[in-house]
Amino acid sequence: MSRSLELPQRLKIVNIGLPAFAEHLALVGADVVHVDWKPPAGGDPTVLRQLDRLSPLAKDVAKANQEAFTKLVEARPFLVDVVSARDALPDLPPRTVLHAGPPVRWEDMAGPMKGAVTGALLLEGWAATPEEAERLASSGEINFEPCHHWSVVGPMAGVVCPSMAVVVVENRADGNRAYSPLNEGLGKVLRFGAYDAAVLERLRWINDMAAPILREAVRAYGDVDLDLIAGQALQMGDECHNRNKAASALFLREMAPRVVRLNHDSDTLFKVCRYLAENEHFYLSLSMASCKSALDAASGVRLSSLVTVMARNGTEFGIQVSGLGREWMTAAALPVDGLYFPGFGAADASLDLGDSAITETAGLGGFAMACAPAMVKFVGGTPADAQRHTQRMYGITVGESPKHLIPGLDFRGTPTGIDFLKVLEADTLPIINTGIAHRDPGVGQIGAGIVNAPRECFLKALGSFVERYAEGGCRG
Amino acid sequence: MSRSLELPQRLKIVNIGLPAFAEHLALVGADVVHVDWKPPAGGDPTVLRQLDRLSPLAKDVAKANQEAFTKLVEARPFLVDVVSARDALPDLPPRTVLHAGPPVRWEDMAGPMKGAVTGALLLEGWAATPEEAERLASSGEINFEPCHHWSVVGPMAGVVCPSMAVVVVENRADGNRAYSPLNEGLGKVLRFGAYDAAVLERLRWINDMAAPILREAVRAYGDVDLDLIAGQALQMGDECHNRNKAASALFLREMAPRVVRLNHDSDTLFKVCRYLAENEHFYLSLSMASCKSALDAASGVRLSSLVTVMARNGTEFGIQVSGLGREWMTAAALPVDGLYFPGFGAADASLDLGDSAITETAGLGGFAMACAPAMVKFVGGTPADAQRHTQRMYGITVGESPKHLIPGLDFRGTPTGIDFLKVLEADTLPIINTGIAHRDPGVGQIGAGIVNAPRECFLKALGSFVERYAEGGCRG
Repeated sequence: MSRSLELPQRLKIVNIGLPAFAEHLALVGADVVHVDWKPPAGGDPTVLRQLDRLSPLAKDVAKANQEAFTKLVEARPFLVDVVSARDALPDLPPRTVLHAGPPVRWEDMAGPMKGAVTGALLLEGWAATPEEAERLASSGEINFEPCHHWSVVGPMAGVVCPSMAVVVVENRADGNRAYSPLNEGLGKVLRFGAYDAAVLERLRWINDMAAPILREAVRAYGDVDLDLIAGQALQMGDECHNRNKAASALFLREMAPRVVRLNHDSDTLFKVCRYLAENEHFYLSLSMASCKSALDAASGVRLSSLVTVMARNGTEFGIQVSGLGREWMTAAALPVDGLYFPGFGAADASLDLGDSAITETAGLGGFAMACAPAMVKFVGGTPADAQRHTQRMYGITVGESPKHLIPGLDFRGTPTGIDFLKVLEADTLPIINTGIAHRDPGVGQIGAGIVNAPRECFLKALGSFVERYAEGGCRG
Repeated sequence: MSRSLELPQRLKIVNIGLPAFAEHLALVGADVVHVDWKPPAGGDPTVLRQLDRLSPLAKDVAKANQEAFTKLVEARPFLVDVVSARDALPDLPPRTVLHAGPPVRWEDMAGPMKGAVTGALLLEGWAATPEEAERLASSGEINFEPCHHWSVVGPMAGVVCPSMAVVVVENRADGNRAYSPLNEGLGKVLRFGAYDAAVLERLRWINDMAAPILREAVRAYGDVDLDLIAGQALQMGDECHNRNKAASALFLREMAPRVVRLNHDSDTLFKVCRYLAENEHFYLSLSMASCKSALDAASGVRLSSLVTVMARNGTEFGIQVSGLGREWMTAAALPVDGLYFPGFGAADASLDLGDSAITETAGLGGFAMACAPAMVKFVGGTPADAQRHTQRMYGITVGESPKHLIPGLDFRGTPTGIDFLKVLEADTLPIINTGIAHRDPGVGQIGAGIVNAPRECFLKALGSFVERYAEGGCRG
C-alpha cells in the first residue's frame, strides 16, 4: 500500500498565468492569489530564438527607437492648404486611384472598397454607370496604389482619385507633408462603399465649394496649428480617431472667424460653416494627416523597431516599421468586435478596413481611449475598459507623449510609438478603434468597434528585422 | 491590589469617527479598520432637536422635494434673445444697479463690487469720473438691488446696469425667463472690479456691436437649445461653471452658421465671431441663466427643502429655499482655497463672490467636477479630488440629473438639487468652484479655487423652516 501524500490542512495557493485555475480554486473557497503572467513571446520558441539573435543589438535598437520616437512626438503638424489630390500630387500617374491599406488587386478588394472605387470612377467621369466602372476597374487600365505610397491616408475604403479635395498638412519640424480627403460626414458615404447619386453630388459639392472656401480661408488668414487642437481635444473626451467631436468644434472655432471674412456671398459661406458645424468627424481627416506627417518623419531610422504604419484594405492588414523602410508586412484582416446599427449584425460586416489606424500608430485612437470614456457608447465596453485598453498599450510602446495627456490618468502622456519587438515579447497586440462597413458595395457604415492588429504582421517584421540586422542576417 | 485588565495578545480594532486614532494605531502596527462616520448633524443638539420637530413631516417634505426636483431637472432652457437689461426688465426703477448675492449697502460692499459699481455708473454716464461715481454711489440716489430679485444672475461682482446686454433664457417647460450679462472674457474686466477705459470700451463694444448681431442671429435663425449644449459639454470635460471650454465651442458651432448669413459687413461679423471664438468662458452666462431659469421654476414649492439660490456679494453668502420662497438666509462670506496667478496670494483675495454658484445649486460646477478632471489645473487638487468632491455631493442632494451624465462615473447623473436638511444631517457643506477677485477695486481676477457654502445659512434655513412648517411653528 502506497503512502498517501500529506498536505497541510489548509493550502495557500499562488496561481501564475491562466486565471481559470485561480477562479475555480476561489470558487471552492481556496485561499488563492492570482499572478497575471504570460511567458515571454507567448512561449513561442521560434520567436524567442529570433529575439535572442537581436539581443546583442538591444542598445542600438533602443537608441534608434528613441530617435524615431523623438521625430514622432516633436512633429509640428499644421493645416497649410486644401487642394485637389491632382494638385497636391502632380506626379500621380494618369488614371490612378489610391486606396487604404497595403497593395491589393481589384479582384481581391473587399466589397466596400469596390463600391468606393466604383464611385471614384463615376466621379472622375471615367465611367458613366456602375457596371461600366466595374468593367473599367477590372480591365487593368486603372493604376491602383496604396494611399500610403503617396503620404496620403484615407479613412475606411480610403479611395482617393485626382479630383478629390484633400487637406494638406505640413510637419513644420521636418518640412514633410501628408494628405487626407475632406470628411464626407456619416451615413451613406464613399469611404464606406456607397456610391449613389447623392454620395457623388455631396463629393462634388465638397470639391467645388467647401474646399475652395477652406483653401482661401487658410491661405488668406493663416495656417492652423493642429497639435494645439489635438492636445486640447484629448482633454475634452476625444481620442481623435472615432471621437473627434471636441477637435471638430475647436477646428470650427479656428475657421469661423477666417471664413466669415471672405468676400463671398453669404449663402456660400453659410453652407461651408454648416458643413463644418454639422460634421463631428470633420477633424478625422486632419488627425490622420497629422499622424501620417509625424510618422513619415519617424520612418527610415536604421535599427528602429518603431511601427510607422498600420493600415487595412479590408482584405489584408499591413504594417511598416521604421528600420525596415517601406516594406509591407501583411496578414489577413480580422473581423471587428463592435456595436451595430439597428438592423445589422456581425454577418453583414466587412473585415477591418482603412488607413485610420495611423492614429493608433501615433498614440491616439485606441491608445488614447482613456481620454474618451463617452466613446464606449459607440464602440462598446465600459469607461473602465477604455482605461484598461490604454493602460495595456504602455507595455508595447517606446514612450509617453509629452503633448497628448490623459486627464483621467493624472495627465500621463498617451502610450506612443509602437515597438513591434515589445508587441511580440509582451504578446500584447495593438488595439484599434474603428468604424465597421457593410461587406457589400454601396451600403455604407453599419457600426463601430474594436479590433487588434494581427500578430502575423509583427512576426513577419521580426523575420525581416533579423534578416536585415542580426549577426549573420543577409542584409546586416 | 486591583486585578489588572486582561487583554488578548493581539487586538483587532474598529475605529469609528476621527481618522487620527486609526492612523496612530496603524503606525504602531495595530490591526485597525477605520469606519468613516460622523454623528448626525455633527452632534449639534440644537440642530437635532429642530430636525426632530420636522420628522413628522418627512414624507411631505420628500414629496415636495420630488416636485421641486422634477421642475429643476425637467426645465428646458433656450437662448431666445440678447437685449439690454433695460429692454429685458422694463419695470426696473430708474437709476437701478443690480449686484451679485444677497442685499448689500454700498458702504458694506466688497472692493471688487465697489469697483464694478463705479464702472457701471461711468458706463451709464451717471458719473464722469471714478470719484464722482463713488460720491453718487454713496449718496443714496442709486437703487441697489440683488440680481436675483429680477431673475438675473451676474458672475463675480454681478453688477448689471440698464445699458448692459444680457442673454435672455427661456425655460420652455414653465415659460419663465432668466438673464445674465454677456461674458467680457478674462483678465481686467468689470465683473472682477476693474473699470478703466479699456474695460468700459469693451463693454460698449459688447453692448453696441456683439449683442445686436447675436440678437439678430437668434431672432432670424432660431433659439438655441442650451441643455443640449450643456449635456454634451459635461461629456467633454466641462463642469459649466469654471470650465466652459467645450460648451463655448459648441455654442459657437451653433452660432457661426447663423451669424455668417446676416446681412452685415464682413468686418463686423468677423469681430463677433472672434469674440465668441476667443472667449472660453462665453458659455458661463448661458449656463448661469439656464440654471436660474430651472431653479426659479423649482422655487416656491410648499414644504420643499430644496435650495434654489446660493449667491455671494463678497461680504455675505445667501441662500434661498424652495419652501421658504424669496427669504434670504445669510452668513459671512468665506475665503476661497485656490491657486493664484503669479504675483498674487491669499492676502490679496476678496472673499467668496458672485451669483455663479447658481450652477452648483443646479447640480453643475463643483457638483459636476468629476466631469472635468482637467479643471484641477485651474482650481487646484488632483483629478481624484475632483471625483471625490462630486461623490460627496450625492449625500446632500435630492436626486441625480437624468440629462447631465458623468462619463468617468459610468454615466451616473450629477448630484442635483441640494436638500438643506441633508446638508445639516450629513454635516456636509455644498462645494463651489469659483474665480477669485482682488480685494481692491479696479484690479481684477487673481486666481480660482474651491469654497464651501457656510453652515450658518443652512442653520438659519432650518430655523425658518421649523417656524413655518413644524407643529407649533408660527406660520405652520
